[in-house]
Amino acid sequence: MERLDQQLRFIAEIDRLKAVIRQTMLTAPARRENSAEHSWHLALMALVLAEHAPPGTDLGRVMAMVVLHDLVEIDAGDLFQYAAQPQQARQAAAERAAADRLFPILPPPQAASLRALWDEFEERATAEAKFARALDRLQPMLINMVTEGGTWAAHGVTADQVLTRVALIEDGSPSLGAYARTMVASAIDRGLLAPPREA
Amino acid sequence: MERLDQQLRFIAEIDRLKAVIRQTMLTAPARRENSAEHSWHLALMALVLAEHAPPGTDLGRVMAMVVLHDLVEIDAGDLFQYAAQPQQARQAAAERAAADRLFPILPPPQAASLRALWDEFEERATAEAKFARALDRLQPMLINMVTEGGTWAAHGVTADQVLTRVALIEDGSPSLGAYARTMVASAIDRGLLAPPREA
Repeated sequence: MERLDQQLRFIAEIDRLKAVIRQTMLTAPARRENSAEHSWHLALMALVLAEHAPPGTDLGRVMAMVVLHDLVEIDAGDLFQYAAQPQQARQAAAERAAADRLFPILPPPQAASLRALWDEFEERATAEAKFARALDRLQPMLINMVTEGGTWAAHGVTADQVLTRVALIEDGSPSLGAYARTMVASAIDRGLLAPPREA
Repeated sequence: MERLDQQLRFIAEIDRLKAVIRQTMLTAPARRENSAEHSWHLALMALVLAEHAPPGTDLGRVMAMVVLHDLVEIDAGDLFQYAAQPQQARQAAAERAAADRLFPILPPPQAASLRALWDEFEERATAEAKFARALDRLQPMLINMVTEGGTWAAHGVTADQVLTRVALIEDGSPSLGAYARTMVASAIDRGLLAPPREA
């Protein structure tokens, strides 16, 4: 796995670009990663990890999906992925309403094609959407590993919860899924995650 | 130009994604756009403005270039585009040194192919690089227009200086260049830019 190790080290390294402040003004306060940065990170992950997509995957469509998948959060905000089910349902409705408002800002034919890409990502039925979703789940795991538990520690997330995400990663990319599984094992060893409960 | 107007309104609207704060931790202080956000914005611009690239342009390569073009700023930092020539020369050397350090974190064949993409962007010789560079110049202009002068006002930038950037945009995309020229005229009318001096 040395090759993949190198690729993931690169992806962790480039996280530092998020601290380079430019001249262009922006209306936003204090920190934590934001969704634009996250989306950019996923686009670069798609480029770097392309060989982990199933053969025949259209990488251009994956990149397009990841750069637009979170646009709906402009209206709906970001919900923590381990939030409770009723909150998830409210969020899904708010995101659909946001998509209904945002994409029609574009000229009609393009609004429909970008909305279709967003729907495709949400439905997770195509190889491209599954791979894009795998990247979306892998990125916070990587960051948590390099920040001594990160959001897992802050929110008391358990290994059981993380392993349900690993299954989604495996579905989009068996090799990235296998890698994620070894990360969870290492996180348990290092005490960053409580071990899964016995069934 | 109504269609393009709509597309640019969309691009201005999605700037707001940069204020959506996620759970994933990051080590960075106060505000202004950062380079990760900027890079993401360009990727989405490439998607939305694809039809303004010359026929035959490989949009996948444009997106790849824009997501990685600023990685070198991790080491070299960001230099304001209107900085003086000696600073620009120092910056170019620092960016090459950064590329020499960063890309080799990747496995050798991939390091070379991503470095080649970065060189291609810098050299601005291909249609893809020229279009990518046009987006890179257009994005701050758009933001300055929606922030009452933004960095132009803050740094006393003149219309002459901005028009040299417009020429670069025209070189990558005649239609986007024409649009940028009307934006500069409007910025002069609104007093956001001093009119060009007579030769």
